Amino acid sequence: MTTRRKLLTIVCESDLEKKLGDEVMAFGAHGYTVTEARGRGAGGERDAAWGPSGNIRMEVICEAAVADSIAAHLRKTYFEHYALVLYMSDVDVLRGEKF
Amino acid sequence: MTTRRKLLTIVCESDLEKKLGDEVMAFGAHGYTVTEARGRGAGGERDAAWGPSGNIRMEVICEAAVADSIAAHLRKTYFEHYALVLYMSDVDVLRGEKF
Amino acid sequence: MTTRRKLLTIVCESDLEKKLGDEVMAFGAHGYTVTEARGRGAGGERDAAWGPSGNIRMEVICEAAVADSIAAHLRKTYFEHYALVLYMSDVDVLRGEKF
Repeated sequence: MTTRRKLLTIVCESDLEKKLGDEVMAFGAHGYTVTEARGRGAGGERDAAWGPSGNIRMEVICEAAVADSIAAHLRKTYFEHYALVLYMSDVDVLRGEKF
Repeated sequence: MTTRRKLLTIVCESDLEKKLGDEVMAFGAHGYTVTEARGRGAGGERDAAWGPSGNIRMEVICEAAVADSIAAHLRKTYFEHYALVLYMSDVDVLRGEKF
Repeated sequence: MTTRRKLLTIVCESDLEKKLGDEVMAFGAHGYTVTEARGRGAGGERDAAWGPSGNIRMEVICEAAVADSIAAHLRKTYFEHYALVLYMSDVDVLRGEKF
């Protein structure tokens, strides 16, 4: 009933949401889910809830190869200048053909 | 110290929160956590934050058999007419007797 | 490219955010992400969005030994009097040296 996929989670500045969303779709993801977030990290407090300085948490369910492509792209594009966090794990999804 | 359980994550329209919450409890879950969400999927933008058209992300920690029952029910009840996303993974919980 | 780490998720009353954040950092975590949440559990409805009675969902990515220390501390400190939920799983992170 379920299909094994990668769950890719990205935590970053809210400003990046639109660009990042377009990029994960361009790399082959079929959708993503975003929640507002805040936090603390190497770069200090990561504030949210007040405009452009906030954080988001984006989740993408996709095939392993797509997850790897997205990860490689984000690493190359954002890691030098952004406090972007990226991690992945396996999940079992229903309607796997949609992801 | 920890007990292996299933973490079931459901992303759906906010309108379904009350009904879905009642259903997961009826199928044997002992609780759930909801966060506001938005996103993009096969059905286009999934907007949030503004009333009934928003999305939620619901997490349920439960025994594997309960997760399977919930998944089967949701598939039968919602998949034809709703852009509901459902995936599961293993987690190790403290106080496993509560889940 | 990725490093295996523990993803520790804590769901608790919003009031605990500051104290819990300080504690996870003191036990060796290098950051955490917080989202607003609400839910239902053994203790009844866990409401959010309205001030101190709300819930939060805190995620910490850290080494397994740090996750165990945090879990042991939270169990000892909060489990008797708080409806705190704690679970963990494995994730593969980029820039593992930061976690």
